[in-house]
Amino acid sequence: MEEVKVIGFWTSPYVHRVTWALKLKGVEYEYQEEDIWNKSDLLLQYNPVHKKVPVFVHGGKTIVESGIILEYIDETWPQNPLVPTDPHARAMARFWIKFVGDKIQNFVGFYKRTGEEQIKAVKEAQEYLKILEDHGPEEKKFFDGDNIGMTDLSMAWLAFWLEAMEEASGVQVLEANSFPRLHAWIRNFKQVPVIKENHPDHTRLVAYFKRLREKFTKPATT
Amino acid sequence: MEEVKVIGFWTSPYVHRVTWALKLKGVEYEYQEEDIWNKSDLLLQYNPVHKKVPVFVHGGKTIVESGIILEYIDETWPQNPLVPTDPHARAMARFWIKFVGDKIQNFVGFYKRTGEEQIKAVKEAQEYLKILEDHGPEEKKFFDGDNIGMTDLSMAWLAFWLEAMEEASGVQVLEANSFPRLHAWIRNFKQVPVIKENHPDHTRLVAYFKRLREKFTKPATT
Repeated sequence: MEEVKVIGFWTSPYVHRVTWALKLKGVEYEYQEEDIWNKSDLLLQYNPVHKKVPVFVHGGKTIVESGIILEYIDETWPQNPLVPTDPHARAMARFWIKFVGDKIQNFVGFYKRTGEEQIKAVKEAQEYLKILEDHGPEEKKFFDGDNIGMTDLSMAWLAFWLEAMEEASGVQVLEANSFPRLHAWIRNFKQVPVIKENHPDHTRLVAYFKRLREKFTKPATT
Repeated sequence: MEEVKVIGFWTSPYVHRVTWALKLKGVEYEYQEEDIWNKSDLLLQYNPVHKKVPVFVHGGKTIVESGIILEYIDETWPQNPLVPTDPHARAMARFWIKFVGDKIQNFVGFYKRTGEEQIKAVKEAQEYLKILEDHGPEEKKFFDGDNIGMTDLSMAWLAFWLEAMEEASGVQVLEANSFPRLHAWIRNFKQVPVIKENHPDHTRLVAYFKRLREKFTKPATT
């Protein structure tokens, strides 16, 4: 077995996607926490283009970008497949993963803002969430069927991160009445043993987003 | 055989990726030109989230986002594969495709600007192009080997579109001395019969970008 290593940061939903995928596949890996505020030479060497976590190393070869790492994991360890076998369903899964990846700031920008700007950002987030809600699982437990898959891993920020951002900024964005499918999906997602046993601590995450929020909303010094 | 249809627009490099891939695979398709300035109900119905071309329809099922369409085409018609068979090489191909997709405005923003702003944008484009140059094919003909593949199709804007933008805006960005690998790649790419016989007309493309440039650089009316 060639060594598998993940370089990550505890608050990153992108890193959790990768470590959850490995756990769902039963792949052993070494995890190394990176201080993203004080990036190591190792990180710059592994990911010179983006200088970001997660970095995934398998048999000495590096892969970056969480979506690309997930595809690699699924192709390399085919047990417990993470994408649908039907090509059209697989394309749709990739579409939704790309959609949340491209629009993530439209979803979560609200927690960095205050006053009128925050109200606008909450409205924007809800418009985008409505698109996900309409696509969300109605009869199935997860986005692509009855088993957790890549789409669910890529939507995980809805489950743990969004609620911490809501608490840190004192607004509710994902109201239960307006988003029943997403709420049901969050409950299902949190019950998966690998997820339940390996997610960032809520209190620590709220404190983290409060600090970030202060940084973003602090008036510029003159 | 289930019917294959592409809804596109003649200037779009994203549309050309898809039609080139189909031609490289020898897949018959129907092409429908869309007036992107006056979007049809059909386009809105096929792609309600992004309302953009290309739209790909196979056996009545729709797929959007050119990168996702390319993966679907490669999985559905495996002849003349467009991605490397080695999983790590495949991940790297996906990385570069995503990189140019995410940063395309950093590459081509210059043609929408004038004066000092254009000088800055040209410098930025060249910094990004340097990253591609360093990764560009040195001994092989194409990005992923000696055959044209998905990475090449995703870099195609370097071949036809960039030169039209340069001509429309009167600046040279991709200088031959500074970017020898990319220039060699462009020559190889343009020699592939499917590409040579099916690319947008240079004069028309220059005129198109001149009109767009006028629109972007026109002083706001008061």
